Amino acid sequence: MSTLHIGLIGFGRIGKIHFTNIQQRIKGVEIVMVADPVADLSGLSVPTGTPEEIIAHPTIEAVIICSPTDTHAHYIEECALAGKHVFCEKPMDLALDRILQTLRLVQEKGIKLMLGFNRRFDANFLKVKHIIDSGEIGETQILKVTSRDPGPPPLQYLRESGGMFMDMTIHDFDMVRYLMNKEVKEVYATAAVFGGPDIRAAGDIDTAVITIKFEDDSVAVIDNSRKAAYGYDQRVEAFGSLGMVQVGNNVPDTHTLATAQGIQSALPLHFFLERYMESYFTEMSQFVDALLHDSAIPVSGHDALKATVMALAAQKSVEENRPVLLSEIEAEYAAELVI
Amino acid sequence: MSTLHIGLIGFGRIGKIHFTNIQQRIKGVEIVMVADPVADLSGLSVPTGTPEEIIAHPTIEAVIICSPTDTHAHYIEECALAGKHVFCEKPMDLALDRILQTLRLVQEKGIKLMLGFNRRFDANFLKVKHIIDSGEIGETQILKVTSRDPGPPPLQYLRESGGMFMDMTIHDFDMVRYLMNKEVKEVYATAAVFGGPDIRAAGDIDTAVITIKFEDDSVAVIDNSRKAAYGYDQRVEAFGSLGMVQVGNNVPDTHTLATAQGIQSALPLHFFLERYMESYFTEMSQFVDALLHDSAIPVSGHDALKATVMALAAQKSVEENRPVLLSEIEAEYAAELVI
Amino acid sequence: MSTLHIGLIGFGRIGKIHFTNIQQRIKGVEIVMVADPVADLSGLSVPTGTPEEIIAHPTIEAVIICSPTDTHAHYIEECALAGKHVFCEKPMDLALDRILQTLRLVQEKGIKLMLGFNRRFDANFLKVKHIIDSGEIGETQILKVTSRDPGPPPLQYLRESGGMFMDMTIHDFDMVRYLMNKEVKEVYATAAVFGGPDIRAAGDIDTAVITIKFEDDSVAVIDNSRKAAYGYDQRVEAFGSLGMVQVGNNVPDTHTLATAQGIQSALPLHFFLERYMESYFTEMSQFVDALLHDSAIPVSGHDALKATVMALAAQKSVEENRPVLLSEIEAEYAAELVI
Amino acid sequence: MSTLHIGLIGFGRIGKIHFTNIQQRIKGVEIVMVADPVADLSGLSVPTGTPEEIIAHPTIEAVIICSPTDTHAHYIEECALAGKHVFCEKPMDLALDRILQTLRLVQEKGIKLMLGFNRRFDANFLKVKHIIDSGEIGETQILKVTSRDPGPPPLQYLRESGGMFMDMTIHDFDMVRYLMNKEVKEVYATAAVFGGPDIRAAGDIDTAVITIKFEDDSVAVIDNSRKAAYGYDQRVEAFGSLGMVQVGNNVPDTHTLATAQGIQSALPLHFFLERYMESYFTEMSQFVDALLHDSAIPVSGHDALKATVMALAAQKSVEENRPVLLSEIEAEYAAELVI
Repeated sequence: MSTLHIGLIGFGRIGKIHFTNIQQRIKGVEIVMVADPVADLSGLSVPTGTPEEIIAHPTIEAVIICSPTDTHAHYIEECALAGKHVFCEKPMDLALDRILQTLRLVQEKGIKLMLGFNRRFDANFLKVKHIIDSGEIGETQILKVTSRDPGPPPLQYLRESGGMFMDMTIHDFDMVRYLMNKEVKEVYATAAVFGGPDIRAAGDIDTAVITIKFEDDSVAVIDNSRKAAYGYDQRVEAFGSLGMVQVGNNVPDTHTLATAQGIQSALPLHFFLERYMESYFTEMSQFVDALLHDSAIPVSGHDALKATVMALAAQKSVEENRPVLLSEIEAEYAAELVI
Repeated sequence: MSTLHIGLIGFGRIGKIHFTNIQQRIKGVEIVMVADPVADLSGLSVPTGTPEEIIAHPTIEAVIICSPTDTHAHYIEECALAGKHVFCEKPMDLALDRILQTLRLVQEKGIKLMLGFNRRFDANFLKVKHIIDSGEIGETQILKVTSRDPGPPPLQYLRESGGMFMDMTIHDFDMVRYLMNKEVKEVYATAAVFGGPDIRAAGDIDTAVITIKFEDDSVAVIDNSRKAAYGYDQRVEAFGSLGMVQVGNNVPDTHTLATAQGIQSALPLHFFLERYMESYFTEMSQFVDALLHDSAIPVSGHDALKATVMALAAQKSVEENRPVLLSEIEAEYAAELVI
Repeated sequence: MSTLHIGLIGFGRIGKIHFTNIQQRIKGVEIVMVADPVADLSGLSVPTGTPEEIIAHPTIEAVIICSPTDTHAHYIEECALAGKHVFCEKPMDLALDRILQTLRLVQEKGIKLMLGFNRRFDANFLKVKHIIDSGEIGETQILKVTSRDPGPPPLQYLRESGGMFMDMTIHDFDMVRYLMNKEVKEVYATAAVFGGPDIRAAGDIDTAVITIKFEDDSVAVIDNSRKAAYGYDQRVEAFGSLGMVQVGNNVPDTHTLATAQGIQSALPLHFFLERYMESYFTEMSQFVDALLHDSAIPVSGHDALKATVMALAAQKSVEENRPVLLSEIEAEYAAELVI
Repeated sequence: MSTLHIGLIGFGRIGKIHFTNIQQRIKGVEIVMVADPVADLSGLSVPTGTPEEIIAHPTIEAVIICSPTDTHAHYIEECALAGKHVFCEKPMDLALDRILQTLRLVQEKGIKLMLGFNRRFDANFLKVKHIIDSGEIGETQILKVTSRDPGPPPLQYLRESGGMFMDMTIHDFDMVRYLMNKEVKEVYATAAVFGGPDIRAAGDIDTAVITIKFEDDSVAVIDNSRKAAYGYDQRVEAFGSLGMVQVGNNVPDTHTLATAQGIQSALPLHFFLERYMESYFTEMSQFVDALLHDSAIPVSGHDALKATVMALAAQKSVEENRPVLLSEIEAEYAAELVI
């Protein structure tokens, strides 16, 4: 394959980012058609159509799915049936059995599927990954992930999000598996609502601390909040037998201001689009690259499934106030057949 | 009281620190007698004697107990019977019922008792406390305590230490209560041994992550290791509704060295004696001050009791792999009568 | 003007950056033609031609000059005669009288001319500027500019560069004037060669410390090296009556790695293209914006002239080992007529 | 010598520090007598007397001189005549010929003389020294010393201080020589008064930037202010062929506070007594050690002389607005005979 022909379904916030990155910065790929039932596509320099036209399009080899979550599984399945590779934004689906059903078809039809866990491609987290993999900190014993949003999404969004674990923590669940390079055994989660009764009324939480155990007794801890007054807080610390590596937030500038009142410096980049902008580019480059060179997809359906199982285990842990084995969730859904 | 007369029992590592601080830096206090059955006291400028002589001494008003842990409760009780105030190094005792018995006598005899949780007096943690109490970060929702030793103590020490939770984490349990200003509801602990079979054979652990829930759903997380390759790692982060405060490690110097190999800076002060040297001075100053001015003792027997209950809950949590309510431990020991 | 039509002369390293930024990220501007006698322009999506064709082109309203230094003044003059606005890379010319001659024509013909002092548009330096202008540090009394390259350019380049002051320090001279918001009175410079006899043989220096006095006795100090072993070092510190602001280097990631060997963090971004990439975009956006809205050009020919006078004063200061007044240089060239 | 017997002349701010350090923390030394005509010495545990009694005392082997500057030279000379070693606070004297006269007598009588350039013993600067001496940054090419006070001393003090170069910068002049390990060739200084007409009326300055050239073309730059709004600012940066080392300020705690308003951290330790407290201890330990073991004195009269010559060269440089060779000053005073 010398040029990859791509269709893009969904032209919202993330869809636009992928579109721009592909058009401007990624070689060897051409966007053949864009579909979005609601967005204004009139100014686009590429043909527009429906999702069905994209999936049926004779020259399109891969489809990028950035449509609403409840359409992801359906479009992946349609792509699988049409023999088209897929890049799909997270989450694949809120229901584990739906994910399982879709993954079985993906496997059967032999298409390549990549999930949009973009944080794996962030320069800071890549550095942690690199240092862990290099052995510089020895065996990782404790991994700490801080992941706090600058503010909660609208209530309407919350109601359809599948809950904080499925919507927000899912990135952190994937990060833990990605950095630890080993499978999770058990999850224990605490949860709280500090942001007011509306969030509780929506059936959701806004604060959590999640302890994740691995077979070898190493542990990861995630702490989440939907509202950090000082902005977007995304840090990781890995502690191992030979040392520790930390990554902090990114800042808009490196200034420090010293006055009689104290030493002041810049708040972190405030929003995920600014903080992770480069990661979306790297992620898509690697997807394109994997298809062009028929090499391994960096984030698989298996990864999506595992992160979802962790989210379900965390929910069950909160409900029952006890550590929950991943194998409990997997047995419930016969997920272990696929995992 | 214009001058406080003090006796010192135990002239080991910590006893010497208290001795020197009192002799050289604390006004209004005089050391009348020092006792230690094994240490060489020949060069001391103050009279020496036995613990019993100190406790029976007519002019001694307060006793500092720095002897081995298994003598703490006994000496406190003897002091209580003799009407002498006490400063006692942590832990009061490894057995909760012994602590309870001692505290009842302390209460009955009306002496003042202060426990040596010196980290409360560290400039960094005092700053966190001050910021939390000032309301600058609003309601604290998540507290993170990192407490890692540069290396495990000798096996002989480990065998008599009461286990990592009772020996090492007890400082962190106290720190959590101190900073959060509210009582703990429940403890969930993971534990591991990464430092070799000897530690396991001694019945101990060397790595733990402990999740601590409060009545209002706020959470503290402690992560412990007996062996941080890069030295003594003592940090705290408090996250609240209006902001976050962090304190890091202390360093021997502020240098950064930039070469083609990278940017390098100093490792933290390597040992607790260096890191916490000033906290021992402040702690003892406040004890002396509280006695001289008949004001409140900053760390009470109640604090010692609560930290011990938390350690027992953590042990039970590991054994039973479930969150353990403090009230379970307290009921078992009828501790709630005193607490 | 609703769309600005632009011609680009010179498609080397910097020319390509401007081309890409305009094509991909700046609205309201269209590149009508590109000229470069040596670069391969075959893959470009826009027409190509000669510099003369661009300057004579009927619809082109502004020209971006990225050709070799010795052509800058000539093309600016041709553009002035053709009534076309100009963005020109620094330096305008190595000879002050040539710059003066060109500026007189620019003034006479009334075209707008912007010089490519891109560092003014760097997020860090913009922050310093903003803080100084806001009055947060009061009156600036001492300004310190550290500007060190990761390695010297090729000798061939050095020979034609006009010397370190004219080629490298010129950015710092401009930065000093930009941040201080007042005119320079006097320059005293030390210079050294530490990088080997070739640099000396080329008549150049590779290390300098330059002290710059202002009328109000405030002082700026620039320290330069052509070879910082740890990479590209670009920092500023402004000290004023009410405080101080510093900006440091940018890093590829925020990691710190703690091992028994020390605490290690990332070296600065190594090359000016990485460090200043965003500044080129902001610079060009503002040029386009100023033309579209007929507003003030942010970096004028006057700025180019002043920086050049400072470079000449520094050279003279080294030669004569004494502080040199800018008025001496200006008198020599009758430059004060234009300045 | 197994115990060093010492007399202390001057019990002001610095005298008390030396007294306490010797009494409490330095072994092998005994203070035999203290003299101060004005301080209240009634509570001291050691005998008191006059300076003359100290100098004539049969068992006193060394004298610490912390009396006013205008008595330093006299007491040193009296000690030399009496065969007593001397530790003297800086400056030796404000007049170079007086210093020369005193040093000649010191040399003739063969006593040991150490000058109180305490900053040489600060942990941060010692680290810079160690790194430079180790060769880790190669040949030092540029040294930058930032030395800013939190506020000017009283006018009365200023009038008798000998001027900022002699009183304040003298520490930095010594630091430059100490760190660079080579002799200074030439000094160029700018000076300003920003702190109001009183300072100017007192004949002094409060702000300066001083460029110092060495024979090998390496350069040191000192920037001074009598008034940094944010406190006491004491930093050093050494840039060499293989890298750079920086040391920053010391802080009372390591906190960072993140709120919606920004990231805030602690101001530096505000006063020289706090910042340099440990350096006074180390300095005195080394003086005692050198006498006890008859080893080299770490800061010699030669060092005091050289720093004074640099201060005089800086003054002359400001007056004549030109670089001044140290040899000019030395020739004027025939100082080169001794230096």
